[in-house]
Amino acid sequence: MLNEQQLKFLERAIELARMGTTENKGGPFGCVIVRQGEIIAEGYNEVTSDNDPTAHAEIVAIRKACRNLGTWQLTDCDVYASCEPCPMCLGAVYWARVNSVVYANTRHDAAAINFDDDFIYREININAAERKIRFQHYPHPKAKEVFDYWMAVESKLKY
Amino acid sequence: MLNEQQLKFLERAIELARMGTTENKGGPFGCVIVRQGEIIAEGYNEVTSDNDPTAHAEIVAIRKACRNLGTWQLTDCDVYASCEPCPMCLGAVYWARVNSVVYANTRHDAAAINFDDDFIYREININAAERKIRFQHYPHPKAKEVFDYWMAVESKLKY
Repeated sequence: MLNEQQLKFLERAIELARMGTTENKGGPFGCVIVRQGEIIAEGYNEVTSDNDPTAHAEIVAIRKACRNLGTWQLTDCDVYASCEPCPMCLGAVYWARVNSVVYANTRHDAAAINFDDDFIYREININAAERKIRFQHYPHPKAKEVFDYWMAVESKLKY
Repeated sequence: MLNEQQLKFLERAIELARMGTTENKGGPFGCVIVRQGEIIAEGYNEVTSDNDPTAHAEIVAIRKACRNLGTWQLTDCDVYASCEPCPMCLGAVYWARVNSVVYANTRHDAAAINFDDDFIYREININAAERKIRFQHYPHPKAKEVFDYWMAVESKLKY
């Protein structure tokens, strides 16, 4: 269950989804990032208007929230999204290390209106050789060297 | 196997990984996008320098490539990455609908130098209630309405 304030945040995310759609920004998806009871960033899908396949509502909102706070971590923030994050946005949520995610529609609802979220979730678990997009692993000693170099740098900023 | 030209592209991605690391831009990851035998965009990880948890090498390169081409689809492009794309970048690769992905290091190599790629791949397959980040599904009729509205709009740009 959500409390009244949480429901308000989710409904704002849904409102953003509708705004983005009616204003022809992109697909029907919205998101807000909340910190200490306040919305610190909002986003809607801007894929087609911004020529950016990564401009999903959650990515847009996470990037804004980080810019606003001057950090690359949102550890004390919660994400409210009009739809279940796709694998790309789920990854972004983990890299930003948010506290929690609340969403309304599901990946299956998204599939029903012809979005690939569920398809991509399924592709992740398919053997790379059988995926629709070909993934080829080619080990290279120089690539390993860069990782070794990184491990040896003491001044690095971890994330 | 890779041909000589493909190997050159992969090695450029590895070189970018090293450049990003030595210049303190972020983690040791690089990527190039290739179209018709030419590199059209390059990227390295800029998470910590840009305060952007989504600024992985692949995301940076995909966004640049799309900006350069004025499109949100990279259907005739190939991705060369110094490391296997994380779930976020795999998602971006699918949304951009690239032709193929070649990578050197793996998610397990990344785990060995303390990056979460493999962890996030495992989290995807865990029941949402057991994930490290709490995912809460709260169905809302207004969210469904936005999807219905989207389906009814005839002029929409699909992606």
